[in-house]
Amino acid sequence: MTTPTFRGIVPPILTPLTPDGEVDTASLERLTRHLVAAGVHGVFVLGSTGEVAYLTDAQREQVVRTVVRAVDGRVPVMAGAIDLTTARVAGQARALAAAGADAVVATVPVYAINDYPEIERHLRTVAAAVDVPLFAYDVPVRVRTKLPVDLLVRLGREGVLAGVKDSSGDDVAFRRLVLANAAAGSPLALFTGHELVVDGMLLLGADGVVPGLANVDAAAYVRLWDLAQAGKWEDARDEQDRIAALFEIVFQAAGRSGDAAGVGAFKVAVQRQGLIDTDTLAYPLEALDGEVAGRIEQITRAAGLLGD
Amino acid sequence: MTTPTFRGIVPPILTPLTPDGEVDTASLERLTRHLVAAGVHGVFVLGSTGEVAYLTDAQREQVVRTVVRAVDGRVPVMAGAIDLTTARVAGQARALAAAGADAVVATVPVYAINDYPEIERHLRTVAAAVDVPLFAYDVPVRVRTKLPVDLLVRLGREGVLAGVKDSSGDDVAFRRLVLANAAAGSPLALFTGHELVVDGMLLLGADGVVPGLANVDAAAYVRLWDLAQAGKWEDARDEQDRIAALFEIVFQAAGRSGDAAGVGAFKVAVQRQGLIDTDTLAYPLEALDGEVAGRIEQITRAAGLLGD
Amino acid sequence: MTTPTFRGIVPPILTPLTPDGEVDTASLERLTRHLVAAGVHGVFVLGSTGEVAYLTDAQREQVVRTVVRAVDGRVPVMAGAIDLTTARVAGQARALAAAGADAVVATVPVYAINDYPEIERHLRTVAAAVDVPLFAYDVPVRVRTKLPVDLLVRLGREGVLAGVKDSSGDDVAFRRLVLANAAAGSPLALFTGHELVVDGMLLLGADGVVPGLANVDAAAYVRLWDLAQAGKWEDARDEQDRIAALFEIVFQAAGRSGDAAGVGAFKVAVQRQGLIDTDTLAYPLEALDGEVAGRIEQITRAAGLLGD
Amino acid sequence: MTTPTFRGIVPPILTPLTPDGEVDTASLERLTRHLVAAGVHGVFVLGSTGEVAYLTDAQREQVVRTVVRAVDGRVPVMAGAIDLTTARVAGQARALAAAGADAVVATVPVYAINDYPEIERHLRTVAAAVDVPLFAYDVPVRVRTKLPVDLLVRLGREGVLAGVKDSSGDDVAFRRLVLANAAAGSPLALFTGHELVVDGMLLLGADGVVPGLANVDAAAYVRLWDLAQAGKWEDARDEQDRIAALFEIVFQAAGRSGDAAGVGAFKVAVQRQGLIDTDTLAYPLEALDGEVAGRIEQITRAAGLLGD
Repeated sequence: MTTPTFRGIVPPILTPLTPDGEVDTASLERLTRHLVAAGVHGVFVLGSTGEVAYLTDAQREQVVRTVVRAVDGRVPVMAGAIDLTTARVAGQARALAAAGADAVVATVPVYAINDYPEIERHLRTVAAAVDVPLFAYDVPVRVRTKLPVDLLVRLGREGVLAGVKDSSGDDVAFRRLVLANAAAGSPLALFTGHELVVDGMLLLGADGVVPGLANVDAAAYVRLWDLAQAGKWEDARDEQDRIAALFEIVFQAAGRSGDAAGVGAFKVAVQRQGLIDTDTLAYPLEALDGEVAGRIEQITRAAGLLGD
Repeated sequence: MTTPTFRGIVPPILTPLTPDGEVDTASLERLTRHLVAAGVHGVFVLGSTGEVAYLTDAQREQVVRTVVRAVDGRVPVMAGAIDLTTARVAGQARALAAAGADAVVATVPVYAINDYPEIERHLRTVAAAVDVPLFAYDVPVRVRTKLPVDLLVRLGREGVLAGVKDSSGDDVAFRRLVLANAAAGSPLALFTGHELVVDGMLLLGADGVVPGLANVDAAAYVRLWDLAQAGKWEDARDEQDRIAALFEIVFQAAGRSGDAAGVGAFKVAVQRQGLIDTDTLAYPLEALDGEVAGRIEQITRAAGLLGD
Repeated sequence: MTTPTFRGIVPPILTPLTPDGEVDTASLERLTRHLVAAGVHGVFVLGSTGEVAYLTDAQREQVVRTVVRAVDGRVPVMAGAIDLTTARVAGQARALAAAGADAVVATVPVYAINDYPEIERHLRTVAAAVDVPLFAYDVPVRVRTKLPVDLLVRLGREGVLAGVKDSSGDDVAFRRLVLANAAAGSPLALFTGHELVVDGMLLLGADGVVPGLANVDAAAYVRLWDLAQAGKWEDARDEQDRIAALFEIVFQAAGRSGDAAGVGAFKVAVQRQGLIDTDTLAYPLEALDGEVAGRIEQITRAAGLLGD
Repeated sequence: MTTPTFRGIVPPILTPLTPDGEVDTASLERLTRHLVAAGVHGVFVLGSTGEVAYLTDAQREQVVRTVVRAVDGRVPVMAGAIDLTTARVAGQARALAAAGADAVVATVPVYAINDYPEIERHLRTVAAAVDVPLFAYDVPVRVRTKLPVDLLVRLGREGVLAGVKDSSGDDVAFRRLVLANAAAGSPLALFTGHELVVDGMLLLGADGVVPGLANVDAAAYVRLWDLAQAGKWEDARDEQDRIAALFEIVFQAAGRSGDAAGVGAFKVAVQRQGLIDTDTLAYPLEALDGEVAGRIEQITRAAGLLGD
């Protein structure tokens, strides 16, 4: 067994649901195959975009198994182990690995009020619980804590962490992480979840990107990646600008919750492309509809994703 | 079957652990019987003070069953259903009720980013999942959201909520809740978790108190309650002042995390009284020791709780 | 010259404005005389309720001189020195003292990002700049920093601070401050700005209250004070409950800014009583009107403050 | 008179102080001339890096007059109008323009609690108070409010705002602002204060940069600018990486306040180059010294800025 390489465009895949809230495995397979065919370099299941917080353990396992089967080894499958604290997160991680995930992505504790030494012990224990590589998921808007550069690089150097998925929106910290990681021999694969500044993040040295919007337009992110790899930075910038115009879909549901507005917009745009059957959101979220969904369709159409 | 009355002093009971992190059921029984003997009017298991976030599902069930058995029907047992979102919290709630809890206490979603209509649907669904009364647990320091007065009173009026455990520290909101609840015919039992201003909260109309410090000195809180019931407000104030001096134990571990400093101090003070076997904290927390533990002992001794 | 005593009900007096935004000194005199006649024990000019942040230096001096003249020595006049940092705040403080203020109330720096040693030096320097007593104004919602108990008591013991006006809403910290101050020989006069839990705060030992709502109903707060002094705590509680019903005026302007909703409601309720000429707010705030003002009037009328 | 062009590298110039805290005009002139000689395209006085919050009105005027004289028309001088609210900020703006500033940079209100319509009126009034162009200064870490894209572009279109200095660290919002501004005909000059991702920000379309670190190494930022203008993005990235290594100076004073750690590090590094006489910080800040200053010197030396 060789360890897969974690880099490139790795969409945090949506979890399609049936109208009554069960995992729609047929749609999930279809979406997964579509993404792989579009050239993505990996997929990330059970992230925030995948509505992981809303899914039961049984549903989570179903999601991993479905995507692993649909991917069929063509690209690595990363999976989010999201729960309250160490013992519970480690349990999630074991279940993900058993279901076939190639890597586990874990957050710091939530609800608990911890300090950095506690968080470090937490990550060490989760890493020790599984045989697959562990990525730290840095998402302070959800867990309140920003992971420090030195803690991450130290855990990379020791082989505890294989990488970081940075959804902090703190690009200064991300550049410092890239430089500190390089100085340490690059033990960490560094992914940004910052979907609107991918050109700049690739220029400064990101190894990969986890853009929720890639569910809607994976091909555009793959083009952006290829242009960046070719050093065509101004073309990459132009592609990113086109993507930014599409990203306006997430700002249409003013007054709705962050989860409903963001994931809701992605699901509308993906459903209208026929990639999933419904735009149902996980309970207690309600799908976007009416005028809001109309504007999302219009933006998606303007991006050339819905035919004429 | 008659619904128990929820009022009075209801300690959020600590979860004693063995040195290797398992639930120490013998200590838990001993502590529970001690609290009941001290005259508390109920117990609350699996709250933040009970390190609920750190416990697995199996450990949680073990805690409820142990306390229910030790209480043996003498006072009601409330239990915290703490998980990420609706489906998962409802699952926890069902497990608690099945294990014998007399009421379930549920938080709003964490990790998820929800708005008030989503939170309201969340509470309705959790309530519908169980036959026992549901209390809303308002603890913004952990879940980021403050529950609004009108939402709570509306759900009380409709019979969805039986009460509120307020750990928000927002006394203006608590007084507004007390007044709005009274105007609605008092459908809600209103508990404060605000352990240092219990005199004032009882004066303004709180139905009960959930003070973590009651693990350390339950008798003092029972005296405070009795003085308030008797309208002896200045004596109640003096008792509260004595309790406040004891509360300084939670400020001794400067530089430690909130969970370690708070629960850690309670466990030291309770273990030194012989009520539990160890002061072990749930992983990844580390027990308080050395000079810090010494100061906690000293304050506990000064309160007359360790003999001479 | 004897130092005045700072205790009791000390309203943070509104700054009435003419329609074109100048200080309406005639209304300010009238309101001041009304408050003194109602029995308040002091007045506090140029607080947040006085829209201090919106006033120029010239207007601030005008406010102090007007109120000092109207009070005519019957009660002490406290005045807020609100500016960005030390040199500027000290300058404000000198101007206030020169205009006749009996005490200066100063915040910690805003805009600047300081730590506690810097804040301590700041308070020492402001205190040294004036001959009148200095109060620290603890208002984290506006300045982001909560003043620690030990810093305040130390500065009290050394004679730097004469007191604290606590608008933090953190009652646990306030009780700890009361107890630590008592243990130190009570060098500090401790005022709460927490206008809905005055009964509880007086019970636990507050020396005074700075309730914005006392602009609207000073007599009620004076009655509450007198009942508390007489140890009639349940009558005090009932008075506080009546006041709480009136306080609902500040929750009527949903969707408006905090300053417009709060000060705007006070100005409507005071203007309708004829105590000031207009309900104009300082630019760029706009006065409350229409249905919102109607509801404020209705609540004020229900409190018996507008005749039948 | 022609309006100057605002673009390129515009350092937020430090305010050198004498040991007793007065503006050291000789050092300020020397530093200014050094920056202009290094090729910067403008200077920004009285920003956060210039310790504006700590300076009196007289000192602020002295700073503007000194820099305007030293610049002698070779590049535009922008100046920060930092005060609590509208009337006061407008007064500051008038004083800056009278002292010779070519543009005014204003924040939203601080201490006050305002909403967006109030903030919009605020900016309109400040703009109307002066004849020179107005830039909005978006610095939520100090003023708590993030300026929305649509408000900024609307005020640009109407000629109220000439530009934005973005110190929000929110690059997603900055890209959306760049795109919305371009779609509106580019009425706004858009500056980033984000000193570590200048390569990416210039790639995506920033018009200029306001990097505090340019006080320490202006030539590096000018090289970075020139490389970006020439489309040599990978060389620009390498230059930015070198700059990032130097930026580590601001992380050396762990445990000190944000202002002392940041501005303090800049002053040490600039003083050691002989560009200013002392590294004195504005009261109540204390200069960095000892081991911390030693590490800052070492990093500055490693960047080749202190000779061998």
